[in-house]
Amino acid sequence: MSSDGAEGLALIKPAVRAQSAYTLSAPVARRKLNQNESPWDMPPEVKREVLEAVERAPWQRYPEFAPPALLAELALHYGWTADGVLVGNGSNELIQATLSVALESGDVVVAPTPTFSLYRLLTTVLGGRYRPVPLGPDFAFNVDELIDVAVRERARVVVLNSPNNPTGSALPAGAVERVLEETGALVVCDEAYQEFGGPTALPLLARSSRLVVLRTFSKALGMAGLRFGLALAHPAVAREIAKGKLPYNVNVVTLTAAAAALRHQAVLEERVREVVANRQRLATRLAALPGLTAYPSAANFVLIRLQAVPAREVFRRLLDEYGILIRDVSGASGLEQCLRISVGTAEDMDAVADAFEQILGVAR
Amino acid sequence: MSSDGAEGLALIKPAVRAQSAYTLSAPVARRKLNQNESPWDMPPEVKREVLEAVERAPWQRYPEFAPPALLAELALHYGWTADGVLVGNGSNELIQATLSVALESGDVVVAPTPTFSLYRLLTTVLGGRYRPVPLGPDFAFNVDELIDVAVRERARVVVLNSPNNPTGSALPAGAVERVLEETGALVVCDEAYQEFGGPTALPLLARSSRLVVLRTFSKALGMAGLRFGLALAHPAVAREIAKGKLPYNVNVVTLTAAAAALRHQAVLEERVREVVANRQRLATRLAALPGLTAYPSAANFVLIRLQAVPAREVFRRLLDEYGILIRDVSGASGLEQCLRISVGTAEDMDAVADAFEQILGVAR
Repeated sequence: MSSDGAEGLALIKPAVRAQSAYTLSAPVARRKLNQNESPWDMPPEVKREVLEAVERAPWQRYPEFAPPALLAELALHYGWTADGVLVGNGSNELIQATLSVALESGDVVVAPTPTFSLYRLLTTVLGGRYRPVPLGPDFAFNVDELIDVAVRERARVVVLNSPNNPTGSALPAGAVERVLEETGALVVCDEAYQEFGGPTALPLLARSSRLVVLRTFSKALGMAGLRFGLALAHPAVAREIAKGKLPYNVNVVTLTAAAAALRHQAVLEERVREVVANRQRLATRLAALPGLTAYPSAANFVLIRLQAVPAREVFRRLLDEYGILIRDVSGASGLEQCLRISVGTAEDMDAVADAFEQILGVAR
Repeated sequence: MSSDGAEGLALIKPAVRAQSAYTLSAPVARRKLNQNESPWDMPPEVKREVLEAVERAPWQRYPEFAPPALLAELALHYGWTADGVLVGNGSNELIQATLSVALESGDVVVAPTPTFSLYRLLTTVLGGRYRPVPLGPDFAFNVDELIDVAVRERARVVVLNSPNNPTGSALPAGAVERVLEETGALVVCDEAYQEFGGPTALPLLARSSRLVVLRTFSKALGMAGLRFGLALAHPAVAREIAKGKLPYNVNVVTLTAAAAALRHQAVLEERVREVVANRQRLATRLAALPGLTAYPSAANFVLIRLQAVPAREVFRRLLDEYGILIRDVSGASGLEQCLRISVGTAEDMDAVADAFEQILGVAR
């Protein structure tokens, strides 16, 4: 290469250059509890069913534009209308599409903080202004403050991730109604973890065309490797969001697997109940430990804060000495000394709790 | 639903609402020649190799962030450096990412017209101003005019699709060098069809950090159903474009299939040669017909213009009477009376030529 790239870099927006990229270095570990994935692979018979259908499919043909049968099944599953459902390559793509059709340069996006970092990154790339509103004690949503800031800043969009990543906090009942009624914003409810707890905004879709609900098959439905998400909105709004989305974005394998997951939802729902039980098991044991706080969680992960031992050191020791990979979120503002632990199997949770006892020097 | 969606629609950008969505109604036909797909499915042994690997993969785990082995193989294949390669869910995603990190509100994008409609749609959604420059006689690129407009309008980005969809025209040798030297723009060369003919801008990557080259596995490599594309650029610029791209955007199946396609490239290259021969076969027969012009093509499709018979009627009769689905592009500006025919098997091409002879009333 003959250059340092300065000429090309000069054509990248300063707001983008100032932003850190979304990255994750992922060391290999025996217990992978860093990405809020399901601890279980899809059942082998479901995989086989999907792969047999995929083998018969013509790979050289573009996937269906908007697969009507799948849209109808999704509409039934979520209790909404098929023409108000958009499918995407993970729900991230639908966050991006929604923000890209709504935000003019300088428009304000209000969201709680700390929350999923992609909202800020996408808002900035799109030229919007991001206004984070701190969560309250124990990371509870501060609905009054969110509404005040949204009204004062004339927010174009309010993004609510509930249960919220990485804190696990769920919106209180009635909160989304209030945000819809008391602000003029487009309210994007990212319910990636809703199957694990907390209220859903889905029933409000019939009442407001300013609501967009995002769902994913990456968490409760155990399909993170295949990337499938959806947006639900008023059909007129869904049609506009579709313009911010790329055509043919969901491939033939993912479309096939999403349909299979819906057919086998009983087994997947049973797994969600098991994850919720394992979360309780972990939370109970962590709560008994001195020197850390485990925050209440409605999701498939638990956020903890360490009092004395440095979080980075605990993260490292869990990985090196116990083969347990969790997420070190302690570098983020408001998350000093915090670590996020994805909920895995009962055995994973016991291993995590045992390791914490040893690291914190608790006698059993 | 209680409303007409007006409240929600009011929060969508006017520029987006004014835009038509990218849509395609796709009737089923025996000969599908409407999307520039490969006429052949991936070889069964390649499909089986991919599916066996996918069956072993854990579907509940996120795909690798930036798969190093695949990036290294792609770098080798395209003669570039791995840290200057970005993979995407189809090359469309990388067009979107590139435009989204480069365009400030009001920035100008210059591209020839007619060309692939997504460039205009994305520019508009992102708040840019799209400046189309007409192609010359026989849809040849007008490089002088492209440069003049880019300089006059201080274009932030110039998009060059070569061979150009839907015209088939390729850039003349030396054109990209000139655009890089004579403008200050980021030059995005979308080479989705380059394997079928025309020069490539890949060797220029070492000379300019203002160049982004896009490639896809959807056409020559026959993987449209799986969605895989890539961007090649100076590593410093690639790092910035990555910020406009969603994490984990390429799923585990597609990553596996892309690696398999590279391992089996000999058979896929043989297919490209056959498509090129079939294009010639079709072009020769169409050239002999009165009442239509077949434009020179370096891609895996041929654009024609009908003189007297309405294009829409010919499109419809091909579908209804002959089971041949092509693309009616006659509604687009500059493409009046034009139809685009994807190149399929030799038998497909004979069937198309026979049907045209009959529809145009040519005695054999």
